[in-house]
Amino acid sequence: MKKKRSFSPPQLLIGLFGVSILIGTFLLKLPIAHTTSISWLDALFTAVSAITVTGLVVVDTGTVYTLFGQFVILGLIQLGGLGIMTFAVLIFLMLGRKIGYRGRLIVQQSLNQNDAGGIIRLAIRLAVFSFIIQFFAIGLLSTVWVPELGLWKGLYFSLFHAVSAFNNAGFGLLPDNLVAYVGNPIINLVISGLLILGGIGFTVLVDMWRSKTIRQWSLHTKIMIVGTIVINAVAMLFIFFTEWKNPNSIGTLPLKDKLWASYFQAVSPRTAGFNTIDLTGLDDATIFFMIVLMFIGAGSASTGGGIKLTTFIIILLATLAFFRSKHELTIFNREIRQELIFKSLAIAMSSVLLVVGALFILTHTEHDVNFLTILFEVVSAFGTVGLSLGITAKLTVFGKIVIIIVMFAGKLGPLTLVFSITRPDKRKIKFPKGDVLAG
Amino acid sequence: MKKKRSFSPPQLLIGLFGVSILIGTFLLKLPIAHTTSISWLDALFTAVSAITVTGLVVVDTGTVYTLFGQFVILGLIQLGGLGIMTFAVLIFLMLGRKIGYRGRLIVQQSLNQNDAGGIIRLAIRLAVFSFIIQFFAIGLLSTVWVPELGLWKGLYFSLFHAVSAFNNAGFGLLPDNLVAYVGNPIINLVISGLLILGGIGFTVLVDMWRSKTIRQWSLHTKIMIVGTIVINAVAMLFIFFTEWKNPNSIGTLPLKDKLWASYFQAVSPRTAGFNTIDLTGLDDATIFFMIVLMFIGAGSASTGGGIKLTTFIIILLATLAFFRSKHELTIFNREIRQELIFKSLAIAMSSVLLVVGALFILTHTEHDVNFLTILFEVVSAFGTVGLSLGITAKLTVFGKIVIIIVMFAGKLGPLTLVFSITRPDKRKIKFPKGDVLAG
Ligand SMILES: [K+]
Ligand SMILES: [K+]
Repeated sequence: MKKKRSFSPPQLLIGLFGVSILIGTFLLKLPIAHTTSISWLDALFTAVSAITVTGLVVVDTGTVYTLFGQFVILGLIQLGGLGIMTFAVLIFLMLGRKIGYRGRLIVQQSLNQNDAGGIIRLAIRLAVFSFIIQFFAIGLLSTVWVPELGLWKGLYFSLFHAVSAFNNAGFGLLPDNLVAYVGNPIINLVISGLLILGGIGFTVLVDMWRSKTIRQWSLHTKIMIVGTIVINAVAMLFIFFTEWKNPNSIGTLPLKDKLWASYFQAVSPRTAGFNTIDLTGLDDATIFFMIVLMFIGAGSASTGGGIKLTTFIIILLATLAFFRSKHELTIFNREIRQELIFKSLAIAMSSVLLVVGALFILTHTEHDVNFLTILFEVVSAFGTVGLSLGITAKLTVFGKIVIIIVMFAGKLGPLTLVFSITRPDKRKIKFPKGDVLAG
Repeated sequence: MKKKRSFSPPQLLIGLFGVSILIGTFLLKLPIAHTTSISWLDALFTAVSAITVTGLVVVDTGTVYTLFGQFVILGLIQLGGLGIMTFAVLIFLMLGRKIGYRGRLIVQQSLNQNDAGGIIRLAIRLAVFSFIIQFFAIGLLSTVWVPELGLWKGLYFSLFHAVSAFNNAGFGLLPDNLVAYVGNPIINLVISGLLILGGIGFTVLVDMWRSKTIRQWSLHTKIMIVGTIVINAVAMLFIFFTEWKNPNSIGTLPLKDKLWASYFQAVSPRTAGFNTIDLTGLDDATIFFMIVLMFIGAGSASTGGGIKLTTFIIILLATLAFFRSKHELTIFNREIRQELIFKSLAIAMSSVLLVVGALFILTHTEHDVNFLTILFEVVSAFGTVGLSLGITAKLTVFGKIVIIIVMFAGKLGPLTLVFSITRPDKRKIKFPKGDVLAG
């Protein structure tokens, strides 16, 4: 192993994201990319929002950016969503180069795989899967948008939204996102289906594809499937019953549309960022509930963000296990290694610190905005969700920079960031045990 | 061991708190306890706020309650602050009865001591300590209040505030708490000194008393001393620099008073509940910072609440250790047992769930109050802090009931509550290890 000038996989991953963001910013700042003049900061914001598949926007995507600009955004979304590293693997393979151990480590890092073997096979499966899924989705969405907008515009809308949804990017071409389609079954089902498939994690999809029976599913797959169903069902019920009579959200809609809206807004916050109702009319309880969902986020090795559903479930079960005085944490008759519980604790705690730190700054810089709105924006950026209560474009320069940093940190995850600047501590000193009171 | 009709220590502790609250409510509802009529709910609220040493008030203590009512409140504060169980031990001893193993277990529970031995000695030390400290404090406070209010009223004010401060109760006799004394060195130093002594935990005080050199201090004492100094210094600097130019808080005060106010409001949120400035004028960033301090809280086995400073420090250090790829968590060259990390995780998570659950309800029931104000109120109740942005008296009936429950749960702590309803799981089945992706 050569020692000098060697970058660790996390450092390379950050570097590649950084270079892509710079190129993206430059392309978006080109005169052919936009119809009205935009600032460097807004171009940077858009590039970071796209490559981190967040979807927070400082300018209206459909009107301010030209077709060229929109394709740049779409390219950044595919790059960030499919995984910048997986992309690199595919390019390596296409060029006929053999991928080395270091390259595999990088992919492993970006897909967050515990097992280094078979990473290339996974990358190929991942690409094939996602193209097939997006292809079918475009066909289905066209049945709505081609009759409405004509052949080419309809196809283009279908393409843009399918890519954006599968990558959980939340970017849309309409100023009010999908509000016009609150009761449309095809838009609701196809978009939410893409969000769930993209957000559940590629390893889960591959595992389900490969397994003949449910019994063959890995523990991770079982937890993700059950967890996704439970959290979406709970979220739908919560939103439906809280907003039931709220005239500013779903109160005036017919029952069918009430149910569609509740379903869609239950699925969307855990990283997708699309909305079919105006969020500013929601009850504070629903807003806060969505913040919790955004913080939890999607699945590991997915196009989504947040601390991840499994992290949340592990912490929850570890807490329950402690209160039941159990010494091992078991799920589906499998024991969870203690290291994993520590990892989950570290991820949750560092994420809390990131969000809290950003809040300290923004509550000070964005003086006239109320706290809940700022909290919503920060957690939306951290979870790369992209939902907003409408303050993104009005943020101060300082506020935009903080949100850019939070999106970047949220996409890469605290693990990657911290491991890029620390070296493992290899000291092996045995200390006597000490007693501390806690709680 | 007899089996039937046996209550576990946590169950007995909850029962004793419950009975004391009922008696307190009844006494406060007596006509001789108040000058204007109060509702049963407000009497219950006051009793719970007093015995949990929170200090949230729905009616003004100094004018609505008579001297009798104020003594009831003071009694409840001493009961809840000194520890209802320690009180029971003393009564047992005074009656000449020998305290049994079960009794010791209850005290152990209420003092959160890991070691069952020597609990009676600790209880006696604790009582002697606290009476000496409060006696001296009354003398010092009298030098301010006797010249100002006359002998008897001045002495009574000194007694009430000394007891309230040492027990971290936050109850005062003036409508605007201690705002009139923002620059008074004696009030600032004596009250904050009492808060810190009462909030650092009795075991720390006993340990410091017993030890001849710093090297003899236990690990817990070292962490608490260093942690208290660091967190108070950080808080003071944060508040000073955030509020420096804010005309609604300390902006118009002379520098000396700016420093006193920053110091006092830094020390107070971690469970005390006194204030020398009007909190509603603070910057949102400071309000949010105080919420974080209130959630962290005071020391274990103290008169204060929150998840406790050691719990916070252990989680923070465990996170750092994970990121440095260390397998053991060490502080001051002592290894922290893994079980303690799990305990800390469980306490923090269940506390978050309690606060979040209360927030879901209150954001829905208290429609016209902004989110930050509700969050402040809920965390203040959870941490038995008693600071408020002024909504306590205006809460809906449902809102008051939720805050009562949160104060009760916050005082007893999630451990006591959950262990009172669960039985240890004694199954010993070994499951194979499973792999899950987290983060
Ligand atoms: K998104
Ligand atoms: K208090």
